[in-house]
Amino acid sequence: MNETLILHEYAQSGNCYKVRLTAALLGVPIERREYDILKGETRTPEFLASVNSNGRIPVLQIGDRFIPESNAACYYLATGSSLIPADRFDHADMLRWMFFEQYNHEPNIATLRFWKGWVGFDNLSDVQRMQIPAKEAAGRAALELMDEHLTERDWFAGDQLSLADIALFAYTHVAEDADFALADYPGIAAWIERIRAVPNYISIDA
Amino acid sequence: MNETLILHEYAQSGNCYKVRLTAALLGVPIERREYDILKGETRTPEFLASVNSNGRIPVLQIGDRFIPESNAACYYLATGSSLIPADRFDHADMLRWMFFEQYNHEPNIATLRFWKGWVGFDNLSDVQRMQIPAKEAAGRAALELMDEHLTERDWFAGDQLSLADIALFAYTHVAEDADFALADYPGIAAWIERIRAVPNYISIDA
Repeated sequence: MNETLILHEYAQSGNCYKVRLTAALLGVPIERREYDILKGETRTPEFLASVNSNGRIPVLQIGDRFIPESNAACYYLATGSSLIPADRFDHADMLRWMFFEQYNHEPNIATLRFWKGWVGFDNLSDVQRMQIPAKEAAGRAALELMDEHLTERDWFAGDQLSLADIALFAYTHVAEDADFALADYPGIAAWIERIRAVPNYISIDA
Repeated sequence: MNETLILHEYAQSGNCYKVRLTAALLGVPIERREYDILKGETRTPEFLASVNSNGRIPVLQIGDRFIPESNAACYYLATGSSLIPADRFDHADMLRWMFFEQYNHEPNIATLRFWKGWVGFDNLSDVQRMQIPAKEAAGRAALELMDEHLTERDWFAGDQLSLADIALFAYTHVAEDADFALADYPGIAAWIERIRAVPNYISIDA
């Protein structure tokens, strides 16, 4: 890889951790640039004009080009590696779990983690507060579906670690921050330990 | 392609249309199997056990295996075709727009279309009704971001039609069903016409 890689991030975000974990597992060095999302640092005119017009992190910078969306950034890094299955079905199945993660998992588990741990219950709007029960139920449903899969399989796609596992791991392993009880999901608990044992694994606070 | 392809779908869903449009552009025949989501036909024990434990359509069946998630099903179909850019950056950039579609676009524009056109305002819960203004604002933000991109580029990723365009087209071209005014977005309007002119294009009601 010839071009400098810079991760524009907020380190405690699971979405940003996905990209760091992928890079670590691949042994690819990345520079890190931190933005305080609570201070609106990803909504400044400079950020919107030069990094991501969607005002969000993570963004992976490759030379002078940018890839927003955590799972797309991971895909860029892992292109050609064993983290992306070569088999046609397994490749699409990996993407299936990554889209599931962004649609069914992240908006529930990551959002509740952010609301509870960063924003604070008292600072939520009425509409946000009213959504909590539905997000708790949808988050549990996502974890149950994962757990069911993991009673029969060690990994989400193919027969080895892939980006699907990395994407789902990021917010699952910290789901207790959002008051989800991981002890209720033994398949998930064992899978978390499998991922922690992978060579070059780094933790979210590394 | 040797195995029979079956699309488990609800035809009016933009997510299902994505898969049909991809197959049509590639000239790949698929069988169609219809479920009435308003009657809960994707939540039956049979469907959950044999098609998709997540209770959702579309699901692409390939022989006796299944790919849920619309964008992953499109990816399976288009593997090896020009609808997926060969260039590493463009490939990841295509996925970036497909994740954007599922995170920033579909939960706003598709959900409002479904609530307004299928469920009906009077049948919405209070929590759903309270979310309408935020979803309208987020839907407009997604359309503005797309329109800004399309003032400089003809397609979303690379320099030709890709799955990113198909994914975003599905609910954008029917956004007026959800009361979004497409006339406000001239870049989008021109891009919609470009897609309609592509050889083998089929409409959502074909």
